[in-house]
Amino acid sequence: MAARKGLDMVDNGSDCRLQSLAALGGGHGLFQTLRAARYLDLPDITAVVTVADDGGSSGRIRRELGQIPPGDLRMAIAALSADSPDGRLWEEVLQHRFGGHGALAGHAVGNLLIAGLTDVLGSRVAALDRVAELARCRGRVVPVVDQPLDIEADVSGLDDDPRIMRPVRGQVSVASTPGRVRRVRLIPDSPRACPDAVDAIMRADMVTLGPGSWFTSVIPHVLVDDVVQAIARSQALKVVVLNLMSEPGETAGFSAERHIHMLAQHAPALRVDRIVVDSNAIPSTSERTHLARAAAGVGASVCMHDVAEMDASGALTGRHDPVKLARALAAECAR
Amino acid sequence: MAARKGLDMVDNGSDCRLQSLAALGGGHGLFQTLRAARYLDLPDITAVVTVADDGGSSGRIRRELGQIPPGDLRMAIAALSADSPDGRLWEEVLQHRFGGHGALAGHAVGNLLIAGLTDVLGSRVAALDRVAELARCRGRVVPVVDQPLDIEADVSGLDDDPRIMRPVRGQVSVASTPGRVRRVRLIPDSPRACPDAVDAIMRADMVTLGPGSWFTSVIPHVLVDDVVQAIARSQALKVVVLNLMSEPGETAGFSAERHIHMLAQHAPALRVDRIVVDSNAIPSTSERTHLARAAAGVGASVCMHDVAEMDASGALTGRHDPVKLARALAAECAR
Repeated sequence: MAARKGLDMVDNGSDCRLQSLAALGGGHGLFQTLRAARYLDLPDITAVVTVADDGGSSGRIRRELGQIPPGDLRMAIAALSADSPDGRLWEEVLQHRFGGHGALAGHAVGNLLIAGLTDVLGSRVAALDRVAELARCRGRVVPVVDQPLDIEADVSGLDDDPRIMRPVRGQVSVASTPGRVRRVRLIPDSPRACPDAVDAIMRADMVTLGPGSWFTSVIPHVLVDDVVQAIARSQALKVVVLNLMSEPGETAGFSAERHIHMLAQHAPALRVDRIVVDSNAIPSTSERTHLARAAAGVGASVCMHDVAEMDASGALTGRHDPVKLARALAAECAR
Repeated sequence: MAARKGLDMVDNGSDCRLQSLAALGGGHGLFQTLRAARYLDLPDITAVVTVADDGGSSGRIRRELGQIPPGDLRMAIAALSADSPDGRLWEEVLQHRFGGHGALAGHAVGNLLIAGLTDVLGSRVAALDRVAELARCRGRVVPVVDQPLDIEADVSGLDDDPRIMRPVRGQVSVASTPGRVRRVRLIPDSPRACPDAVDAIMRADMVTLGPGSWFTSVIPHVLVDDVVQAIARSQALKVVVLNLMSEPGETAGFSAERHIHMLAQHAPALRVDRIVVDSNAIPSTSERTHLARAAAGVGASVCMHDVAEMDASGALTGRHDPVKLARALAAECAR
């Protein structure tokens, strides 16, 4: 695919040009999707971000100031920051973490700035728009729900008896449990979606969900009824980007098929169009059959694309490659 | 004096228009001087700011991150912020202090932003320029010395025997000592001035010193040899703005004359042109004679101006009124 604007841009198709993207997720997975969107040079990008983090700098701000944990929001702004001197400077400043051994150590500057602007403006959405403006972002970053959420999981394998299920609460605890996560829920359990998130989904040409920590950054979105309804009503092409099988974490050892089943189990009403799977994983014929069947269960077809990032020595990094992912999304949009 | 640009601006004279101001000080006193400069709509303003604070948010940042205490610098940027929607927003954000009861409580957002930018840019001066840009400042804010300083004072009256002098160290301790401050010194004792501070003094039409906490925000400037030399070599009109006699703090009960003596005692080589005294204080004839003699000792004439701020009910606030001070400075420049 030819470069469109310098070497950095990915051709966004000529017939069916993607204009408007709503990217749902959180953490490093969403970062890579938004970088892909940046390569596509879209006029309208909205990152719709999870707000259930309770660890690190975000968790401390959440507990001390009663605010939405800003970390995933900050990372999304960094991902969308302009590839210009100002954009790069502010990306670095927002992501910078204080050193030392005191009370500030580990706090990301961007988290503190989002918290301060939210205090002053009295609006999280307005605060995020201001920080995005600083970083010369093309798109917007909005929280999926305009209040802090908690995640609680039913986890097995924590006791000698594998049938015993225990509740584990908090994003950090769920993401790091040595047990097996069976189901997650939100607390409170019926949050209203942020209107800006619903609007973005409704006007999008494409909605993406994932990649990312499946139970703590991806599934929480489809536990919000307004989000599932907006996805259903939107004319957008709905694309689930599955995790690379090499990604470690809470779903280590899960098959691609199992990722889809988990999504369907948590949101039975969810229907999507495409499931992007990394072609490097090359599953066996029987695996492909199972995967296609699972995808059909949520209304989708499976699309194999080479989307895995490699380092200079050709080794897999475990992350999606933004340029490859941009090409895959543009190709699916044009199909 | 007629307004020049809307109601907010103060006429800056027609014959001898002030163009370039270097304002030396710190804390709330410097804030009022810089607000006065903002009313004069000068094309070139540089705030040259003390860096010896060791209390509050600034002190915590200094101790944790080994940085220059940012509080006085932040306050100067706030003072110079544009009187526009963007300027007012960022002034409020920079000055905003986190609430709650945790490790962030009391930290000013601007202090954290200055610290983060300094880490990333590796330059305090560049970081301050960036924050000033955010607040749409007309002028620049630079530290007088590009390293954290300590203040140590010889204080009497702490023992039963009033002749006993004890060293008291740190800006907070000196500013709040119940004893009588006799002399202050800097640690380290021969710091190099920041080159940008020296440049600003050299190119200025007017250099102001004060008002402010005399021992901790004003005298520290003239303990830096490079600053005294730059003041001597500069063609600027050199103006000391004395504290209002109603100002509380470390020099409570000091006469105007004693303020000048203290300055001369700490910097015998210092020569200035004008000493602006609040005409509301109206000292007796003998006091006026003593004051004029003290001023002549540093090469200056005394200029009486109504510069005291009053609240809506006509009561003195204890601060300089920026509009009145702007008029006084413009008048002295035109004289």
